Amino acid sequence: MLELRLVQGSLLKKVLEAMRELVNDANFDCSATGFSLQAMDSSHVALVALLLRSEGFEHYRCDRNLSIGMNLSNMSKMLRCAGNDDIITIKADDGTDSVTFMFESPNQDKIADFEMKLMDIDSEHLGIPDAEYQAIVRMPSSEFARICKDLSSIGDTVVISVTKEGVKFSTAGDIGTANIVCRQNKTVDKPEEATIIEMQEPVSLTFALRYLNSFTKATPLSETVTLSLSSELPVVVEYKIAEMGYIRFYLAPKIEEDEEMKS
Amino acid sequence: MLELRLVQGSLLKKVLEAMRELVNDANFDCSATGFSLQAMDSSHVALVALLLRSEGFEHYRCDRNLSIGMNLSNMSKMLRCAGNDDIITIKADDGTDSVTFMFESPNQDKIADFEMKLMDIDSEHLGIPDAEYQAIVRMPSSEFARICKDLSSIGDTVVISVTKEGVKFSTAGDIGTANIVCRQNKTVDKPEEATIIEMQEPVSLTFALRYLNSFTKATPLSETVTLSLSSELPVVVEYKIAEMGYIRFYLAPKIEEDEEMKS
Amino acid sequence: MLELRLVQGSLLKKVLEAMRELVNDANFDCSATGFSLQAMDSSHVALVALLLRSEGFEHYRCDRNLSIGMNLSNMSKMLRCAGNDDIITIKADDGTDSVTFMFESPNQDKIADFEMKLMDIDSEHLGIPDAEYQAIVRMPSSEFARICKDLSSIGDTVVISVTKEGVKFSTAGDIGTANIVCRQNKTVDKPEEATIIEMQEPVSLTFALRYLNSFTKATPLSETVTLSLSSELPVVVEYKIAEMGYIRFYLAPKIEEDEEMKS
Repeated sequence: MLELRLVQGSLLKKVLEAMRELVNDANFDCSATGFSLQAMDSSHVALVALLLRSEGFEHYRCDRNLSIGMNLSNMSKMLRCAGNDDIITIKADDGTDSVTFMFESPNQDKIADFEMKLMDIDSEHLGIPDAEYQAIVRMPSSEFARICKDLSSIGDTVVISVTKEGVKFSTAGDIGTANIVCRQNKTVDKPEEATIIEMQEPVSLTFALRYLNSFTKATPLSETVTLSLSSELPVVVEYKIAEMGYIRFYLAPKIEEDEEMKS
Repeated sequence: MLELRLVQGSLLKKVLEAMRELVNDANFDCSATGFSLQAMDSSHVALVALLLRSEGFEHYRCDRNLSIGMNLSNMSKMLRCAGNDDIITIKADDGTDSVTFMFESPNQDKIADFEMKLMDIDSEHLGIPDAEYQAIVRMPSSEFARICKDLSSIGDTVVISVTKEGVKFSTAGDIGTANIVCRQNKTVDKPEEATIIEMQEPVSLTFALRYLNSFTKATPLSETVTLSLSSELPVVVEYKIAEMGYIRFYLAPKIEEDEEMKS
Repeated sequence: MLELRLVQGSLLKKVLEAMRELVNDANFDCSATGFSLQAMDSSHVALVALLLRSEGFEHYRCDRNLSIGMNLSNMSKMLRCAGNDDIITIKADDGTDSVTFMFESPNQDKIADFEMKLMDIDSEHLGIPDAEYQAIVRMPSSEFARICKDLSSIGDTVVISVTKEGVKFSTAGDIGTANIVCRQNKTVDKPEEATIIEMQEPVSLTFALRYLNSFTKATPLSETVTLSLSSELPVVVEYKIAEMGYIRFYLAPKIEEDEEMKS
């Protein structure tokens, strides 16, 4: 039997909004340690990894490891019916083919339960090896979202270049070119407004803006975002989820030769 | 001659917004007692009844009973040109084929008059007999609107079931099922947030969500809504209009046999 | 070499939003006195004239007169990437075929440069003779925008009639007629809320609402708008740009005979 009670239910709503544009169907893995998910996006280019640790739930009961397959669009339809202050409980009986979402209003006057059919989804769990990154950039998540959106109005891909002084986002398109430089800045009033660069060596990688823009749907989950970059490794775009875990997006860089062959 | 002056003009704007999705053309009936309307929706399934009592107007002159036929969509286009703080006056001369809406800004700097052609509309006035209802539920209008909207994302019809403990709204659709229970609650800080149930006997009736959602366009008119339910009678969804009257929507329950025949 | 630095960058964003619906491509003329533009709208009915005086810029360097042709839609795409508090600098080298827009965040943490190709645009500069107007109306720009929008829901053209008492805006359409009168009013709390009429003789002119509605895109630039009216002259709709200049729209009145021939 599975029963997970999350007082801050709006967090689960935001998690779904962060993923549903990228992923159609996915298996959520429930174990004693937490509620997690790993899924490729529908075009098999990007990877999403979610972890909500068991300690972050008000009540967490998971008798045995369970993998529950859900359509994220339908799950999101149901979670949108929860109020932003509602407590959300996820329930599934052993051997059942459905999951129940229960929403309780703060004063307990309104109780809703939504039952959704589960799906059988083939999925293989990819091992993501720990890696050393050449550069790690932490910056305000809203700033990163704004930059990805702005550059999308000019071009399709972005070159992210990190030096000790800052991180540069560049694009080019039919109407012109654009460069946006964010300087390292640790002396800010609020720590979440800092831009901090940890760099082993300079790195410059090219990515499709379309996917980065999808990743920024996670912006409401965290005030900061971390970009981990290395040549020949996928970038990791991570949003920490306060006291619970994270949502991470992985995207392989574009290889210049590929670019030229296509064009 | 007809001349009705309403200081709180925004109220008339809200009344039109509440009705114009359901009703295309309708006769407004003006008499010494008030300004009223009764009309079927364009698919002849739901009935709307409006009453604005003469005492609620700052100035109310109606020399003889008059029925003025108006296209609600055009009337709404004109009323939307009134500012939210404007005083609205409705004028019609005897024997005329047009009506004038006058809008005065609070400081009298801006005066607008809009003249609209009247229409000849066939309509029969249905007598709505007073009825005893098995259950009457009073609840916050925004809560009712939210529930109808949320359930529409799951199914097409809602079963409303009233017991002494509360009122349950249930639906089912392709992606799953949903139940929302609102408990009776009289001990709230603000009286308009209470959910109060007056019940002679339990009742459970099925309605098309599409119509209930149209009714909730009246939500801005009142903080509370009253649902009056009896087997074999149309539900009455009533929004009181402060110190003036009400807007009531009537909708017949769906019969289970009909349902089965269709499916 | 051209280098114009504007601390209040949002102003340039608003100028572009004010013009881009009317004008596709235009030459900006840069001289020692300022940054200006004159262009016909794409249907060659209305004329736009912009002036931003050199004194209004924090830094203004223009070595020789320069005319730079830009696609306003592309320019607007780039300027929308500037934050509302950003400082904007426009740069062009002599003999270059591109212009650079630089955006600096207030704390200098984020610096963006956008480069856009210039265009060769044929344009003749119309001399606009100084004229005596029969009536000049100054009124709140939001009020004028609201009136043009409201009347558009009723008709296609507006008759603007000025007398000493006030200015009347009238229209007629399939669903009826509308008249909105704004009375002269100098005794208001805030000077920008005044409606002031300077009149030599009464005037009544007819204009296409479609163009007036386009002009009101300039409303965010100024709290007041000035309408200068004379028979047989185009109306001038002017929005002053604080301490910098103005944007003016010119539109010829419709001649009644034309109207009758068309209908």
